[in-house]
Amino acid sequence: MVKKGMLIVLSGPSGVGKGTVRKEIFSQEGNNFDYSISMTTRKMREGEVNGRDYHFVSKEEFEEEIATGGMLEYAKYVDNYYGTPLKYVNEMLENGKDVFLEIEVSGAMQVREKCPDGLFIFLTPPDLMELRQRIINRGTDDLETIDKRMKKAVDEIEMMQNYDYAVVNDQVVNAAEKIKTIIRAERWRVKRFLPDYKKQLGDVLK
Amino acid sequence: MVKKGMLIVLSGPSGVGKGTVRKEIFSQEGNNFDYSISMTTRKMREGEVNGRDYHFVSKEEFEEEIATGGMLEYAKYVDNYYGTPLKYVNEMLENGKDVFLEIEVSGAMQVREKCPDGLFIFLTPPDLMELRQRIINRGTDDLETIDKRMKKAVDEIEMMQNYDYAVVNDQVVNAAEKIKTIIRAERWRVKRFLPDYKKQLGDVLK
Repeated sequence: MVKKGMLIVLSGPSGVGKGTVRKEIFSQEGNNFDYSISMTTRKMREGEVNGRDYHFVSKEEFEEEIATGGMLEYAKYVDNYYGTPLKYVNEMLENGKDVFLEIEVSGAMQVREKCPDGLFIFLTPPDLMELRQRIINRGTDDLETIDKRMKKAVDEIEMMQNYDYAVVNDQVVNAAEKIKTIIRAERWRVKRFLPDYKKQLGDVLK
Repeated sequence: MVKKGMLIVLSGPSGVGKGTVRKEIFSQEGNNFDYSISMTTRKMREGEVNGRDYHFVSKEEFEEEIATGGMLEYAKYVDNYYGTPLKYVNEMLENGKDVFLEIEVSGAMQVREKCPDGLFIFLTPPDLMELRQRIINRGTDDLETIDKRMKKAVDEIEMMQNYDYAVVNDQVVNAAEKIKTIIRAERWRVKRFLPDYKKQLGDVLK
């Protein structure tokens, strides 16, 4: 499916602050990638703009997209659909643009299946990374708290394994900067540019 | 072999400017990695310092290291040995330090076999990347020139396939900055920190 551009997926557990980090990234200039606007069936809220915040559609239109394979990923929350229309993503990728998605974990796994070569970044809460230190310093936390944190950590590690990178959301500005560093570096990955480069060389040679 | 630190290998075709780029990287402050000093049997030149420019040893000492498996990689040029002693690299990695090697392509392939999880960066001459444009603009170059460039490109692409990243050495400062970006980003790779992290969590849990 991916043609030329790189598909960038930012995801992570709910409440970790994906939206805030994404907005920080897009508030800065000089990005070489576009944000893919999600589609939803929920009602437009005051101040929201159709085509900027979401593509607002009816339930029937959304289900028609699902039925005809038009969604890259989608999920239903509280009776409303949310998802990424394949059409816009493909248009951008085919024009050589990198596309940035900020989506839930279940959606990210749908994308991973369809686009294994995408760049998958997991945003992780700082407490996961602090956990080890907390456990070592046992005594400051009671055992029940540690046990709860531990279970959460195990769940998050399970999720994280399906991603290429993990970035701690300790501070929004830091996390945004790290994600931009990762995206920059990935452009120089041999596996990303070499197949295309070889094809281009081959084409002109024949 | 790799314990905790990350092994960073910068390589590329001879004459591409690996040494200059490496020196540029190490002339800057704030690096989180150490340079691994090579071992050689060639004579010390004026201005060189043993243990800073090279570990200078006799041919017998070098061959003893080879025989006892003490070299991570080595090669012989014009009757002199050049190589990377495993001892220093392992010491740094075990202390959690990332280690930076700047070595020839043949040496890099020896390291790749022993440390597949290292970070392998290929420094490529700018003409390889300009080649496609030149071919498209055919007419400005004669066919023989294009053919020669093409053969060189094919060789370099063959080498490049064994690396994780490729950086064009268009300007030394640019190339150095890109390599540092790559090294930064790689620290957030899930495959790099997660195994260790899980082990640590597992250890404290039991």
